[in-house]
Amino acid sequence: MQAGHVILCINVGSSSCKFALYSVAGGVESLIAEGAADRIGSSGGKIRIHDANGRSLAESDRELKRPKVAVDALFDEFERLKLPRLDAVGHRIVHGGPHHVAPEVVTPALIDDLKKLIPFAPLHMPGGIEGIEAIAARHPKLPQVACFDTAFHRGMPERAERFPLPRELWDAGIRRYGFHGISYEYIVQALGADVPARLIIAHLGNGASMAAVLNGRPHDTTMGFTPAGGFMMGTRPGDLDPGVILYLLEEKGYDAARLSELVNQKSGLLGVSGLSSDVKTLLDARATNPDAAMAIEMFCYQIRKAIGALAAALGGLDTLIFTGGIGEHAAAVRGEVCDGLAYLGIAIDRARNDANQDTISSAASKCRVRVIATNENLMVARHTARLVFV
Amino acid sequence: MQAGHVILCINVGSSSCKFALYSVAGGVESLIAEGAADRIGSSGGKIRIHDANGRSLAESDRELKRPKVAVDALFDEFERLKLPRLDAVGHRIVHGGPHHVAPEVVTPALIDDLKKLIPFAPLHMPGGIEGIEAIAARHPKLPQVACFDTAFHRGMPERAERFPLPRELWDAGIRRYGFHGISYEYIVQALGADVPARLIIAHLGNGASMAAVLNGRPHDTTMGFTPAGGFMMGTRPGDLDPGVILYLLEEKGYDAARLSELVNQKSGLLGVSGLSSDVKTLLDARATNPDAAMAIEMFCYQIRKAIGALAAALGGLDTLIFTGGIGEHAAAVRGEVCDGLAYLGIAIDRARNDANQDTISSAASKCRVRVIATNENLMVARHTARLVFV
Repeated sequence: MQAGHVILCINVGSSSCKFALYSVAGGVESLIAEGAADRIGSSGGKIRIHDANGRSLAESDRELKRPKVAVDALFDEFERLKLPRLDAVGHRIVHGGPHHVAPEVVTPALIDDLKKLIPFAPLHMPGGIEGIEAIAARHPKLPQVACFDTAFHRGMPERAERFPLPRELWDAGIRRYGFHGISYEYIVQALGADVPARLIIAHLGNGASMAAVLNGRPHDTTMGFTPAGGFMMGTRPGDLDPGVILYLLEEKGYDAARLSELVNQKSGLLGVSGLSSDVKTLLDARATNPDAAMAIEMFCYQIRKAIGALAAALGGLDTLIFTGGIGEHAAAVRGEVCDGLAYLGIAIDRARNDANQDTISSAASKCRVRVIATNENLMVARHTARLVFV
Repeated sequence: MQAGHVILCINVGSSSCKFALYSVAGGVESLIAEGAADRIGSSGGKIRIHDANGRSLAESDRELKRPKVAVDALFDEFERLKLPRLDAVGHRIVHGGPHHVAPEVVTPALIDDLKKLIPFAPLHMPGGIEGIEAIAARHPKLPQVACFDTAFHRGMPERAERFPLPRELWDAGIRRYGFHGISYEYIVQALGADVPARLIIAHLGNGASMAAVLNGRPHDTTMGFTPAGGFMMGTRPGDLDPGVILYLLEEKGYDAARLSELVNQKSGLLGVSGLSSDVKTLLDARATNPDAAMAIEMFCYQIRKAIGALAAALGGLDTLIFTGGIGEHAAAVRGEVCDGLAYLGIAIDRARNDANQDTISSAASKCRVRVIATNENLMVARHTARLVFV
């Protein structure tokens, strides 16, 4: 392997910490290792590290009380395994607020700013900030870069960015930020000159959203102010009639904490099925479990409607791309979503779809439908290399 | 005029009470008079009654403290004007809950049931119930019928009726009821044998929603559990990222009362424009007022996206119908909504649109676009006649 800069890409959350280690030389990234620290703050904490070929390098049980403990445990393992010395760290940070519209080198001022954004994403921001601070404490001179999942969407037309709320709430930063932006940016970059005029990217994972991209530029997105918005997800409901929430507050005795638990952890596929938030589990169960079947049916139906809404925003559709864990692997979901989209010129080739091929639309399909694996870590590595070494 | 049954159709709300008086003979309805009691509960209460030709029969200032005072004031005027004696009264009732799926003759048991539904629509139900009781107190033997604005949508597929929330909330009646159902039913009945396979009806008024109708049957709708859901309206935001509401509760000190005011009275066109909830006022102002222009732009954009979402639910679109005050009269809104819907086969004929003609699509348009005046009172009269006199 050619010697180059070594970049750790890390996504520190409240319950898990995922990373990938790249060597970057001459603009080419090579994966060295990747892994995760899981079950932070719960019992049964675990560290797993494997190399670029999937061969396990380390697997150990650890009590991981807080995100910073997990970060330190990972760094201890990196040293024990004698992985190459880091030249920079890139963080995936969920929320950049209204002012952070591109990746930035971490400074004390940026950390202060990120702390002010905690109320915008109280479940996601504290872990990310704690990760930055833990690494700075351990390696004060190591350059760190923050990449924001909201940044891709900045530059959307104001009509898409605004909620129909009073102006003072817009001025207070309550707007449609959108998320999964690092994934969307990766996909658009992967398309290169092939980027079509009217593109929808469906990032379907445990969190799920969609971006409408017009001539390579952000045009609209389904997620809003927080990752609870948009359409149905693993444990989140997406956008709701606000009257439902008022009813829960006024008639059912909910408070904010219980509402937060409802819309972040108990709704979506899990809430409807009563079984699981995992699409594969539900697909396996649906033949015999009507609640699992209804959860999958609703999920596919809501995705189809979201594609319809964004196609209207784009004035039609040239290419639809599925990505994210579900988007890349759940052929049944892709097939059911696309059933009924013939009016958009979509025709799926069943064999291609079942094989998770790059292009799953038929030769006759006017709208091309593709499956592209996203790589958010690689996108973070590219931004980090560009900001630190160029 | 042929002698027939005389039916009062009335919609008693918390701040206004609108009515129409019909004579029904041999299945043909003739309008005798219509009017309203306005500004109930405020200063400046007013009663207006005119005949079928729009000629004023009565106009007077009255203090209208409560809905029942307004109902009594109207009945006093009917007697003073010597209008024909009533044979039945039909009420437009906003919410029928999960169990009232068709118009019903009012009984004490039904009134008890409606009172249990007040928490589902606390701003709308009390006035309607008070109106029924005021008329029953004045004319105990006069038959009354309740027509529910939710009834049309019952029979939607469960995937459209359910929110992605835990099953116990579905079981507790928290579901997508949909509203404006009396209007949708009127339009579908007006189409008769002309009802297309894939139909969207956009009822655009100060409250606004859309229904997807497949082969004449309800298929989906934009409004949800309460009239605050769906897309942007005069003073309501429609569906929102629930994270916005959590943020207002946790960080901005909102309580349920302030949230209710926000999502029922201060959002939508009024919130964005800071000027008015009235589309005509905003259209007149937008050339010189950027906030008014943004409000109209967002409104048309959200309507376009909702059409896109429902077209995906229907698998394409054969006919789009605009109705309601804005839908029937705001040619500029219809035109902007349909701009960008060419991919659905929609082509608008500008002259026909400007003239509010029945068909506003061009001869070449694959999807027919129509403007049909709704008549909810007439629909209530038909149901009342059918239930009471047949």
